[in-house]
Amino acid sequence: MLWMKQSQLLIPTMKETPSDAESVSHQLLLRAGYIRQNAAGIYSYLPLGFIVLQKIEEIIREEMNATGAQELLMPAIQPAELWHETGRWNVYGPELMRLKDRHGRDFALGATHEELITSLVRDELNSYKKLPMTLYQIQTKYRDERRPRFGLLRGREFIMKDAYSFHDKSESLDERYQMMYDAYSRVFERCGLNFRAVIADSGAMGGKDTHEFHALASIGEDTIAYSDESDYAANTEMAEVLPPDADFTADAEVQAAFFRANDDTIAVYYLKGDEVNDVKVKNVLGVEILEALTDEEIQELQFDPLNPSDHIKVMADQWVEVISNGSLFVGEGQKRYNDINFGQDLHIKHFHDLRFIKEGDPSPDGRGWIKFARGIEIGQVFKLGTRYSEAMNAVFLDEQGKSKPLIMGCYGIGVSRTLSAVAEQYHDEKGLTWPNALAPYKIHIIPVNVKNDEQLTLAEQLHLQLGDKWDVLLDDRKERAGVKFADADLIGCPVRITVGKRAGEGYIEVKIRKTGDMLECHIDELNSVIEAQMHD
Amino acid sequence: MLWMKQSQLLIPTMKETPSDAESVSHQLLLRAGYIRQNAAGIYSYLPLGFIVLQKIEEIIREEMNATGAQELLMPAIQPAELWHETGRWNVYGPELMRLKDRHGRDFALGATHEELITSLVRDELNSYKKLPMTLYQIQTKYRDERRPRFGLLRGREFIMKDAYSFHDKSESLDERYQMMYDAYSRVFERCGLNFRAVIADSGAMGGKDTHEFHALASIGEDTIAYSDESDYAANTEMAEVLPPDADFTADAEVQAAFFRANDDTIAVYYLKGDEVNDVKVKNVLGVEILEALTDEEIQELQFDPLNPSDHIKVMADQWVEVISNGSLFVGEGQKRYNDINFGQDLHIKHFHDLRFIKEGDPSPDGRGWIKFARGIEIGQVFKLGTRYSEAMNAVFLDEQGKSKPLIMGCYGIGVSRTLSAVAEQYHDEKGLTWPNALAPYKIHIIPVNVKNDEQLTLAEQLHLQLGDKWDVLLDDRKERAGVKFADADLIGCPVRITVGKRAGEGYIEVKIRKTGDMLECHIDELNSVIEAQMHD
Repeated sequence: MLWMKQSQLLIPTMKETPSDAESVSHQLLLRAGYIRQNAAGIYSYLPLGFIVLQKIEEIIREEMNATGAQELLMPAIQPAELWHETGRWNVYGPELMRLKDRHGRDFALGATHEELITSLVRDELNSYKKLPMTLYQIQTKYRDERRPRFGLLRGREFIMKDAYSFHDKSESLDERYQMMYDAYSRVFERCGLNFRAVIADSGAMGGKDTHEFHALASIGEDTIAYSDESDYAANTEMAEVLPPDADFTADAEVQAAFFRANDDTIAVYYLKGDEVNDVKVKNVLGVEILEALTDEEIQELQFDPLNPSDHIKVMADQWVEVISNGSLFVGEGQKRYNDINFGQDLHIKHFHDLRFIKEGDPSPDGRGWIKFARGIEIGQVFKLGTRYSEAMNAVFLDEQGKSKPLIMGCYGIGVSRTLSAVAEQYHDEKGLTWPNALAPYKIHIIPVNVKNDEQLTLAEQLHLQLGDKWDVLLDDRKERAGVKFADADLIGCPVRITVGKRAGEGYIEVKIRKTGDMLECHIDELNSVIEAQMHD
Repeated sequence: MLWMKQSQLLIPTMKETPSDAESVSHQLLLRAGYIRQNAAGIYSYLPLGFIVLQKIEEIIREEMNATGAQELLMPAIQPAELWHETGRWNVYGPELMRLKDRHGRDFALGATHEELITSLVRDELNSYKKLPMTLYQIQTKYRDERRPRFGLLRGREFIMKDAYSFHDKSESLDERYQMMYDAYSRVFERCGLNFRAVIADSGAMGGKDTHEFHALASIGEDTIAYSDESDYAANTEMAEVLPPDADFTADAEVQAAFFRANDDTIAVYYLKGDEVNDVKVKNVLGVEILEALTDEEIQELQFDPLNPSDHIKVMADQWVEVISNGSLFVGEGQKRYNDINFGQDLHIKHFHDLRFIKEGDPSPDGRGWIKFARGIEIGQVFKLGTRYSEAMNAVFLDEQGKSKPLIMGCYGIGVSRTLSAVAEQYHDEKGLTWPNALAPYKIHIIPVNVKNDEQLTLAEQLHLQLGDKWDVLLDDRKERAGVKFADADLIGCPVRITVGKRAGEGYIEVKIRKTGDMLECHIDELNSVIEAQMHD
């Protein structure tokens, strides 16, 4: 166990809130002396911050190793040649930090390691007998964010756990994906986070299934749709909307939206008050790019819904199909068509799920109702498929001796981001309120007056005694009690022990940081009082 | 404890020695599947290599924490402004890897962290009350070596432990320096290394005392002079040479060497067979640069030792002073002067220690005789003084309220280099022979024939049973016994257990990797047999 005297530690607390720190976690981690900024988006972890970081890493290691994943460590500096093999050298843009060595050769600072791990295994995992295999590392990553912000939440140098799995069959990937999904859930549970595993968009990574893990927090940059009764959650653009009940009828108003996709013009009808989800429209059309028409372009269309020209594809959201005697509004001037039975009247060939989910919608899994929350993305699991192995010729021989590209999954956790997300969820107006599993010290002992021998002696005695079992911090500084209490609240250890006037009789005060509960007890009862608090 | 099945691990052993690996450690770490190269001087640590790395790091952490040092983590990316403050941005040369961010701002990839740590503490360690303090990190460092070689021994991306101490008084630095010196000795002892703490040259770092820790190895790039009876050791250019005994007399031959320092010409007399140590000459003269004259320049001097011109400074090594009836040789043609009593005859104003130490010289500490060895530098402790704090205005208020620059020490261990140095010292012709403290697995269990149920069952049972106490690797691969034995020797776990024909009777064979000793024993005796081997 760790025990330390605060007078000898680097814990530079601040009274003032730093003016450039926008999020609570950023403000408190700075004020409580956990981190310091060295450049925009680039931070040092001071001793307290480093302890918390290590605890998160230890939890991750335990859960990764339990899945049979093997830890290794790849370099941050990666030869450009590897990124040329997958084409990402040119695609990645300015987020990928690049440098030249003394011989003028190009290198990337690893923003991610798909290329490197694939190059590493492509000569080794050459037979189905060696599969599946999962490899992971905990390592510093680099992304030159356009706008670093929120401290560790969006930095340019940050710590990630990234894992990669390799398979001969997609069923094997499915299994491992589920193992990692479960392991991630355990990691974030053990970190004490209120989080959701969210169905996400596989988008640019070129894979199939993917879930993001989001810690719920008001400053989160993503909106999550989740069920108030089940564990269903999805990015809002990915959330499936259920069709209306059979008995759903509405004398409703319907709106038309117009898009261009390649050379086609698309009309989409949807209920007024809803919003067209362009990801869903794209998926239905099978296109990559969809542009909304301008008001002028819509005018020029001279679109007549009762008699649409052949070169316009007309589709509608599924909720429009059942509307009878409804109204349709078209174009800027909102030309109105009344008494329409949308299922029959308008030559609509396709009804699909084309809108964004809304708060109050039924949950797509049939259990409960949808609510919205903001989330901080702290992890992602991803079925990559053969995107990288094909590009980099990483093949194996299957049971029939046939050469095939490795099937891959990748799995990331933002380690430093998790630290910030926990701080975002565990604080009050006085400071941080760490969960037991991550607190830098479990117990903070404060002698009210260090010049009083009785108090200091008892405090030091408790420090050594409790230190056998828990991580204990002793505030032996010659500061006023008020300063020490304020610092203790700021730092946020779960249990505070105040050694004051009744030290001579063996009485001390125990305060539970998170609840604010205080009680006076005799040192003989102390162990059981603390034990009761150490279950998160 | 760790237990693993080899069929599921990434341990890609190789039969052939890689042609581009020059050192034994590099060859064996590649062949035994501990590391792989990703670019010149840039490596991945595969699972086995990563385990050893973690063990070294754990030893370092324990010994650092025991000195009261606090761990933190600084970024690799450092703003150029900090390096401008100390002037090192321009001085450091192409070894310092540099890059620009998307806004065109200059950054260095940390080759070392004096600037960054000084910037971090300069506003915090502002009073003598907060001193001394030692901070350390274990982190990836970057140096663009002109010629990366020997695998992890001279890489471009490597792992270092770097510590920095801050003091109000030089006595405090002296104390902490000694603590770190002792801690380093314990670290390298625990790693099983044959090493020496070597008096070194403080040179370009601008400090005072410094010791380097060298692991003795024939491929070492430095020559060390050490005593065969004491722990005295020094870089050869730093080793003091004792003056001759009072009864030393020699009818010896003396040689003259000529140098230019600034605008002065220097003549140095020394015994034939010795070598002038230009570091010592520089120190006596108090100059930075010393150039040897060419033969032509010596000719032009027309130097007459019996009547030297005033513009030539004449000095001699201390061993020349006592020579009577000796000969002096001058210049290319080796003009000879005979019957000289050097103490009196030649107008020599200064006799100093000016030569390199030689094998067979008495040790400067008076105990034993000097021998030479080659060393791999694995650590350095260094009294920096105020070089960085003055340049960066890192000041504190002393007890009198006076502002003074912080006095600093810095202390480095090459973590990845230590791994290689151990491999360099622990191997034989068959492979690696790890010391217990660093072995990736303590025990390697090999069922001779995995298709034999008795053998496989017993092997698996031992795997689980021994795995409660030790890290155990089970070779469950369907390979020939010879292949498995060869791989086990290559990988180098301290104890090998072979489960073969007598498995049914409970008899197995234990082989000690390092000595090659083998014995057959019953599984009931196994625990005590292994226990006896686990004391390094």
